[in-house]
Order: sequence, then structure tokens, then C-alpha cells
Amino acid sequence: MNRISFEKVQDTLAGVLQRLGFSIDRAQACARLFAETTCDGVYTHGVNRFPRFVATIRDGSVDPQAEPRRMAGFGALERWDGSKGPGNLNAWAAMDRAMALSRTHGLGCVALGNTNHWMRGGTYGWQAAEAGLIGICWTNTMPNLPPWGGTEPVLGNNPLVIAVPRERGPVVLDMAISQFSYGTLESYSKRGEMLPVDGGFDEAGNLTRDPGAVEMSQRPLPIGCWKGSGLSIVLDMVAAMMSLGKATHQLSSDPLLETGLSQIFLAMNPEALGTPERLSEIADEIVASVHDCPAAESEKRVRYPGEKTLRLRAENRKLGLPAEPQVWAQILEM
Amino acid sequence: MNRISFEKVQDTLAGVLQRLGFSIDRAQACARLFAETTCDGVYTHGVNRFPRFVATIRDGSVDPQAEPRRMAGFGALERWDGSKGPGNLNAWAAMDRAMALSRTHGLGCVALGNTNHWMRGGTYGWQAAEAGLIGICWTNTMPNLPPWGGTEPVLGNNPLVIAVPRERGPVVLDMAISQFSYGTLESYSKRGEMLPVDGGFDEAGNLTRDPGAVEMSQRPLPIGCWKGSGLSIVLDMVAAMMSLGKATHQLSSDPLLETGLSQIFLAMNPEALGTPERLSEIADEIVASVHDCPAAESEKRVRYPGEKTLRLRAENRKLGLPAEPQVWAQILEM
Repeated sequence: MNRISFEKVQDTLAGVLQRLGFSIDRAQACARLFAETTCDGVYTHGVNRFPRFVATIRDGSVDPQAEPRRMAGFGALERWDGSKGPGNLNAWAAMDRAMALSRTHGLGCVALGNTNHWMRGGTYGWQAAEAGLIGICWTNTMPNLPPWGGTEPVLGNNPLVIAVPRERGPVVLDMAISQFSYGTLESYSKRGEMLPVDGGFDEAGNLTRDPGAVEMSQRPLPIGCWKGSGLSIVLDMVAAMMSLGKATHQLSSDPLLETGLSQIFLAMNPEALGTPERLSEIADEIVASVHDCPAAESEKRVRYPGEKTLRLRAENRKLGLPAEPQVWAQILEM
Repeated sequence: MNRISFEKVQDTLAGVLQRLGFSIDRAQACARLFAETTCDGVYTHGVNRFPRFVATIRDGSVDPQAEPRRMAGFGALERWDGSKGPGNLNAWAAMDRAMALSRTHGLGCVALGNTNHWMRGGTYGWQAAEAGLIGICWTNTMPNLPPWGGTEPVLGNNPLVIAVPRERGPVVLDMAISQFSYGTLESYSKRGEMLPVDGGFDEAGNLTRDPGAVEMSQRPLPIGCWKGSGLSIVLDMVAAMMSLGKATHQLSSDPLLETGLSQIFLAMNPEALGTPERLSEIADEIVASVHDCPAAESEKRVRYPGEKTLRLRAENRKLGLPAEPQVWAQILEM
């Protein structure tokens, strides 16, 4: 594993993006989001994902010059069209606008249609929480998850993000609705390990912890089985209805053609109601109650969502971002 | 199982509530919510739960005359104090206010602290969706769920409701964050059946489908294991921070003393952005895509959340509400 400085990574990616038609500013912003994702330890959706992002630009799914446009607004609520622009820039702009609305109205919501994969969803949660706001956002995805009781992937794994500001560091939940992604199943398979909990059905229709069996059946489990199945459906409905964009069933199931997504960005401004000094205390007390829980395995403390992020961020800033050599070599050729 | 007319049930419960100190109007409203819950087929939280609700009034946890009070407001966002009043009346008032705010601002949110158990959470989702609004609400609860990696119940099962309006009938997700409630575990135990999926850990720390083993260990699973564990934490944080109310760790773990809950009620007004005629079509198309999914068991069609409700509601309205004879006898004595 190579280590490359944050600045070098960002500048290298930005250079590639400029050659693909991004303006200087947008190339830097888009590259920064990729570098920050790797820096925060979400390696699947940072630099390692960049070549696939470039492929979606080259094949026309992502328009590097397209900017999101405000289509309608009513008070704290707005609808934007992502114009098939870069998904992470669109999502950043949408959360930024929801945050601005929440400064004026206490709450703000932007429904964004016709956009592209937002890469790491947690990015937009951190964006809100680091500004002192609660951020809630979700996206629909291509069909990749069977509903409970069904055998075909008609639902999306629709990642959901809920981020809470806190002086000692935000608490950020960033979860897809599938129990394991296909990427995770593949990692377990390659290592020859069983999953820690049931991950889906085998070809015979039995629940299994065998990652290869789930890859074969293409029947991974939604979190909570019937519960996550229902959650995926309503998240898709709200995103598509509010944005007037596409629903999961209208999206291609080819990952390279997964374009035209619908997303919701919601910001809540807790300080608008006063008593800002109490807010972090409440969050700290909840964190303490979780940390105080006796651990099932004595060496592993119970953690809150996003707990590892700030430590990894500091470490990767200091040592340089980890990059897979062949991915980095590929990027240097672009 | 007896069948008793909706009106008879409502009037009987209202009579009990008046004798406990409710005003006539509030007694009727509170009784209606219990009767509607049973009518919609959520038997655990309707009439069958009424004796326990009465017990919380008698022991002083619920103040029958207390009304919720607006403590602070900023645009679309308000904080209310539930004054330890009846949880279902407080929740109804809070969602009603969030809905009114969404008519003015596109969005509305009421954070309600110092309230009591809201009984059936789905009630407030249906309330919003039947008025053409998207309703999202959640409550924290007493500690009843261990976090992932922990052995003590320091989290709540914090039910989450997401409701979507649709002309042919709302789509309403109403789910607790535990995979199975203790009530459900008990039902399986009594019938001598195994759970359909893992429901928790046994005393040896192994995942199990044996409901009795989970009752023994008091270690039920959150939905999605580490994912639901994180979701429970952030839902509690947002509710407690926005309401300045109690967090789960501050609540008694005695069900009869579970008072002073924190809740969030959020309404989104999709019609505020125009094109109301398209909204139901989008929802219908998603429903159709789910119904078209091949079923794992050919006789069981894949369902959307809340799908059975309208049929059960019509049936129970026509035939009368099912009541457990001993519960009904107990109510008639009150």
C-alpha cells in the first residue's frame, strides 16, 4: 500500500478532471471530496472508486460541466434538477442549500432529481454536522436488493445518512439498507471467511452466512429483513416524489449506467431554538452511556457511528492517504 | 374473541377516561386513537394496551389534564413540552402542528419532550399521509436493546415511522429498531415456534432463533445488527437534542415508569412544489414494481408497508373490533 499526501492526491485527481472538461474550481472541489473520503477511511468510495467515476464521465452518464438548477421552491423546501452532473458536487450543493434554508427557516430540504451516484453518503452528513446542523439525507440506487419475500432485486440499497453535530466530533450514521454490500461479500469470499451474521439466501432459499452462496443467489438480505425492505421502499418513494425524479425501478441495473438518481437532503438547525451550550452535552451523555455498556468481547468497546473517523482522518493526513498501487498507477496514466 | 362495534369501544374507553379526569373532548379523542389502532389491526397497541395505559394514569406517570405547550419556535421548527400528558394526544397534537407548519413553510418539525408513550407510532404517519403530507416521526424509549457488541440494554428500540400519501391508500412504515419485540418473542415461545430469522443471542453469546433463549439472555438483536444499533443512537440524539428532553439512558427501565420521552414529528408537503397529480402515480408505479417481484413462496405476494391496513380497517369496522374477552371484561369494570 502506497501513502500519498492529501495535497498530491487532490491535485492529481483534479488534473484528471480538468482534462475531462471540469472547470478548475469544480475539478478541485470534486477531487477534494474523493481525497477526503479516503482520508476518512472509507476506502471503497474514495480514490479507489475514482477510475469508475472517470468511466461514467467518459461514457456520458455524468456530464462534467452540468450544474444543478433550482426548479421550484416553497419556504424551506426546494426541488433541484441535478442535470446529470457529477454526483458528489451535486449532493454537496444540495446539502449546502438545505443548510442555508435551515438558517432561515429552522429546517431546510432540497429534493434533488436527475443526479448521479453521490459516492460516500456520509460526506454530506459531515458537511452539515461540522457546520453545527443535523443532516439527514438519502439516495435511491439501481435495483440491487430483493424485497423481503421476493427473489428479484427490485429495491435499491438506498443509503441513509443521519449526522449529529457535537463539539468533540460529529456522530454520523452512514448505512446502506443491505446487510452487506456486494463488495463486502466479495472481500469475505476472497479471504475464505464466513459472514458474522446471515447475509442472504443460498440458491435453495435458506438463510446463510456463506458469502459465496449469496453472491450466487443474488439474494442479499435487507437490514432487519421485512423492516429494511419496507424502509427501502419508502425512502425511494419520498425521494422520487419530492424530486419528481426516477424511482429505483426506472434505473438501469448496470452500475456504469446507474444515472438519474433521486436524493433528499434535510438540514435541521438545533441552535435556532436557543441553548446551544446544552446540545453537545446531551450528545456527550448519550455517547458516554453507549461507551459504558459492558462489551460482549472485553477488548472491544461499544462504539457510536462514525467514532473511528476523526482518528483515521488525523492519521491519514499525517502519514498520507493509503492508495492501492495499481489504482494509483492507473490514475497517473489518465 | 369478541367483536364489539367501533362506537361502543370508543364510548366505553372514553367513559373510563372521563372518570380518570379527562375532559369530554380529550376522552373521546384519546379513546378514538385506541379504537382506531385496534381497527387497523395493530392489536398490541390498541384496546389490549388500554389497561396498561390506565395504570400509568393511576400511578401518576401520565397526567390526564396536562396539555402540550409550545416552548420555542423558529420558522418551520418548534419545540414543545408534553407536560407528561397522555402520549397519544400529545403526539397527535405535535404532528398536527408539524403539518400546519408544512402548509406554511413546505416543511414542519415539532420536537416534543417530556411526553409519554405514543402507543401506535403509525397513527401519526397515517395522520399526515391521509392529509396528503409525508410524515416522518420517531420516539425514544426506555432502555430495552443492547447495542451491537454490548451486553446490556442501553439503547431504546426507538420506533421510526415514515408515511407517504397516495390516493389508493398511504404507504406507512412503522418499525421498531429491534428485530423482534419482547411481545413477539413471547408469542413465539408460547406457540413453541422458532423465529423465522435470528432474533438475538443466547446466554452463551451465540446468535439464535430460539425465542426463549433471547428472553433469557435479554439480548435481542437490533435490525441490521451494527446498523440498527447506530440508527437507534442517532434517533435518540436528534430527539433529545431538538426537544431538550430526556435521552434513553435517562429513562426508567420499568415499563410502568417509562415517562418523559422525546419525540420528533416532521411533515413534508410535496404538493407545495406543484404537480400533485403526478405524486400518486410515482407511488403507484413503485408499488407495482414491488408487487411484480417474483415471490419466494408462490402463494405470498411481496407487500409494501401498511398494505394490509385498509382491508383490516374495513373488515373490523364492518364486523366490529376484535377484543380479548378478559381485557374487555377488565375495561368494563373500570
